[in-house]
Amino acid sequence: MSARIVQGAATAAAIRESLKPRIVAFRQQAGRQPSLRILLVGSDHASEVYVRNKVKSGSDEGLDVRLERLPETASLADVLAVVTRWNQDDRVDGILVQSPLPAGLGKQAMQQVFDAIDPRKDVDGFHPYNSGLLAQQRPALAPCTPSGVIELLDREGVRMAGARAVVIGRSEIVGRPMALLLIGRDATVTVCHSKTRDLPAVAREGDILVAAIGRAAFVTPDFVKPGAAVIDVGVNRVTDLGEARAIWGDGSPKLEQLSQKGSVLVGDVHPRVADVAGLLTPVPGGVGPLTIVMLLANTIKAAENRIQG
Amino acid sequence: MSARIVQGAATAAAIRESLKPRIVAFRQQAGRQPSLRILLVGSDHASEVYVRNKVKSGSDEGLDVRLERLPETASLADVLAVVTRWNQDDRVDGILVQSPLPAGLGKQAMQQVFDAIDPRKDVDGFHPYNSGLLAQQRPALAPCTPSGVIELLDREGVRMAGARAVVIGRSEIVGRPMALLLIGRDATVTVCHSKTRDLPAVAREGDILVAAIGRAAFVTPDFVKPGAAVIDVGVNRVTDLGEARAIWGDGSPKLEQLSQKGSVLVGDVHPRVADVAGLLTPVPGGVGPLTIVMLLANTIKAAENRIQG
Repeated sequence: MSARIVQGAATAAAIRESLKPRIVAFRQQAGRQPSLRILLVGSDHASEVYVRNKVKSGSDEGLDVRLERLPETASLADVLAVVTRWNQDDRVDGILVQSPLPAGLGKQAMQQVFDAIDPRKDVDGFHPYNSGLLAQQRPALAPCTPSGVIELLDREGVRMAGARAVVIGRSEIVGRPMALLLIGRDATVTVCHSKTRDLPAVAREGDILVAAIGRAAFVTPDFVKPGAAVIDVGVNRVTDLGEARAIWGDGSPKLEQLSQKGSVLVGDVHPRVADVAGLLTPVPGGVGPLTIVMLLANTIKAAENRIQG
Repeated sequence: MSARIVQGAATAAAIRESLKPRIVAFRQQAGRQPSLRILLVGSDHASEVYVRNKVKSGSDEGLDVRLERLPETASLADVLAVVTRWNQDDRVDGILVQSPLPAGLGKQAMQQVFDAIDPRKDVDGFHPYNSGLLAQQRPALAPCTPSGVIELLDREGVRMAGARAVVIGRSEIVGRPMALLLIGRDATVTVCHSKTRDLPAVAREGDILVAAIGRAAFVTPDFVKPGAAVIDVGVNRVTDLGEARAIWGDGSPKLEQLSQKGSVLVGDVHPRVADVAGLLTPVPGGVGPLTIVMLLANTIKAAENRIQG
């Protein structure tokens, strides 16, 4: 048996297509483009790449996306001042502060910033008010990655109602909202984490298995019910040749990639899971493209909500 | 095997004891009692009983609890006006609007009222902001019944960390917050509901099983892993003698109770589960007393938070 490998690009393109008429309608009604403001503090390399992709995708789609930068040395007050300005600007529909913030701002800074964003403009879906609407199964700006996973399962014909779904990981960005969204779709949902006993056996209960723990190739074939839909949300960077060889085996093109680029990406799911699963999303190229398109969808939703009062 | 039947009264008394010094400290600091305002609209019989218990328990504990009434014919605007007055009254720490509201106010009325309560005074924990804090595993005014269940499990020595916990029911008042609280205590949590396939088999995975579905004696012994801790959150009124006989069998004192009073209470858990479970909370007398004491605990927490700014 060999899993169907599902790239996110097709679903992302379909969602993008569905957004087009809504953007047109918004422009007609509001006389302007839906607008997204992104704040990048400092110059983390990965963040630069993410932000560039967000600006490009949004602009390509006809959104007004602007990036603002603050230096690595910015204070929390500086960051909050930008957020406040955008909260008050009636022409701003969506606000995104790229995480992580520089470590110097302290452990609580990211949460303080998320809490400060007007919930109506909170396109990341990280404000407690939006988390609460989601927990209450009410329409909300939901976090982009788990929303993208639901879209992908839908469009790939994976039945959620009545299915056993197992989510490995309980982060506030993926694990818990993922579980709440799956409950909303009538799945029977189990949340696992570092304290779960006999994790492989629990994971094997899942007709749908979502891995979001941030551990390279952690989910091996013994975690997977034959034929299950396995969604790999992890993005881990492998720099060690021995580790890469242990994951992909000798002769894999990934090893060459590693020696050329100095690192190579791997998800939370081991490549050999493809022999057991019925459906598998790869890393990179699986849920990644969906996260960005759901950010655009949230921006348009926020814009529509705001003009509808 | 016969389950240990655990009344909530002992845990409730212990919690009440732990609240006493906090009430004293608050009075010294604030120069007044922690205060709770309860609004009862109309005259639903069960609500009258609940409200009376809440007023009495709070007053006995040294809280300033006052009941305000609106007639069955009150409008939503009337209800919201009371809430707004209490939101603005600096001497009010906790606000509770007894549910259900009269049917004439419409299906959305209860949610509109909950949404209108200042989250800092939301001692029921039903405001989306508080739901969100709970979903994000941040300190929150959490719904009273699931909070009481956690207290009971703790004080009865039921280990949650690493245990499999199964919650039957996904309501916003019990099921979902219960699941989130159990995840916060490091249990591996599964949420089941009406769409779950082979519910007895899934329920049997639980070392801890919480029944919150509102169906009389629905959870039969085949749902229960031998030795599991079974928490019965349901409160169902049986008025039919045939149904009562099917549940308790001929010769049960419950049948006499039914013929005398016209009805008798039963939980979501069948009485014969006592033969399989390791621990079982009865109905009435199990989690009920905890719900009220957690309301008092939330009121004191809200009062403390408010004077600490």
